[in-house]
Amino acid sequence: MALDSLRGVLPRTYDNQLCSIARTLEVIGDRWTLLVIRDAFLGVHRFEDFQKSLGVARNVLTDRLNRLVDEGILRRQLYQERPERYEYRLTRKGVELWPAMMTMMKWGDTYLYPERHPRLVLHKDCGGEIDQRLHCSKCGVELGPTDVYVEAAPAAKDKAA
Amino acid sequence: MALDSLRGVLPRTYDNQLCSIARTLEVIGDRWTLLVIRDAFLGVHRFEDFQKSLGVARNVLTDRLNRLVDEGILRRQLYQERPERYEYRLTRKGVELWPAMMTMMKWGDTYLYPERHPRLVLHKDCGGEIDQRLHCSKCGVELGPTDVYVEAAPAAKDKAA
Repeated sequence: MALDSLRGVLPRTYDNQLCSIARTLEVIGDRWTLLVIRDAFLGVHRFEDFQKSLGVARNVLTDRLNRLVDEGILRRQLYQERPERYEYRLTRKGVELWPAMMTMMKWGDTYLYPERHPRLVLHKDCGGEIDQRLHCSKCGVELGPTDVYVEAAPAAKDKAA
Repeated sequence: MALDSLRGVLPRTYDNQLCSIARTLEVIGDRWTLLVIRDAFLGVHRFEDFQKSLGVARNVLTDRLNRLVDEGILRRQLYQERPERYEYRLTRKGVELWPAMMTMMKWGDTYLYPERHPRLVLHKDCGGEIDQRLHCSKCGVELGPTDVYVEAAPAAKDKAA
């Protein structure tokens, strides 16, 4: 069918997909979008800093930030009055993407960087590394985004720009 | 810079990204790829069934299945000798994507389908629904992919093709 070849282009909506994964991918499934969210968790909030971190074209970044604000995942917050400057902060809806981010990170740690994890997500209380089920590997407590800090592993520091 | 505009096209590798999330997205970040993995978890194993479930062009599906086999996330298994026919099964590396799939699903349930979750992932032992931290909401036990069964919610049944 002619439709089939059009479908290869990946429409942004999947009419026949009543599915929370498919709909979630419509909202956050673009890779730049996910990396913007990752950076927001890492403490990046300003346009110039996202741009520097991601090396993405400014128009693409503007588009992704606007879409994330429209979806209620980021909100704009004034940080300078003259000229007006806004930064981007995760909303609660955004913060609740943390488990999805972390489970992807831990899978990548295990299978793509088995020898040395690029970033260590560590429990503030005891310094244990987060495990694949988002518990502390040292004391066993279940971790949330405010319970941890992030350190670049030595390898990552060496390669950082 | 001229490079900036090229970057908008989203290269498949991010040279300046030593990051398990960025690398994971290189492997599974394509939306069709993620939906193929989702279907594999839901018990879809054969080309024709993936094609029917996703409504994706056959060449795109072939490409995604091949890539998943190359990445060691799916493996081919002979199920018919004459003519030779293969089905696709999750490897251990693939099965370990289950927490990432589930956390995305639960986020979508909460924020995109708050009134009625399209699919219910239920604990085999007690019938409780999986929660956002992948525990049983009824008996509290931590759940893995072999501990659950999946039911379409009534709304999903109504809309199914």
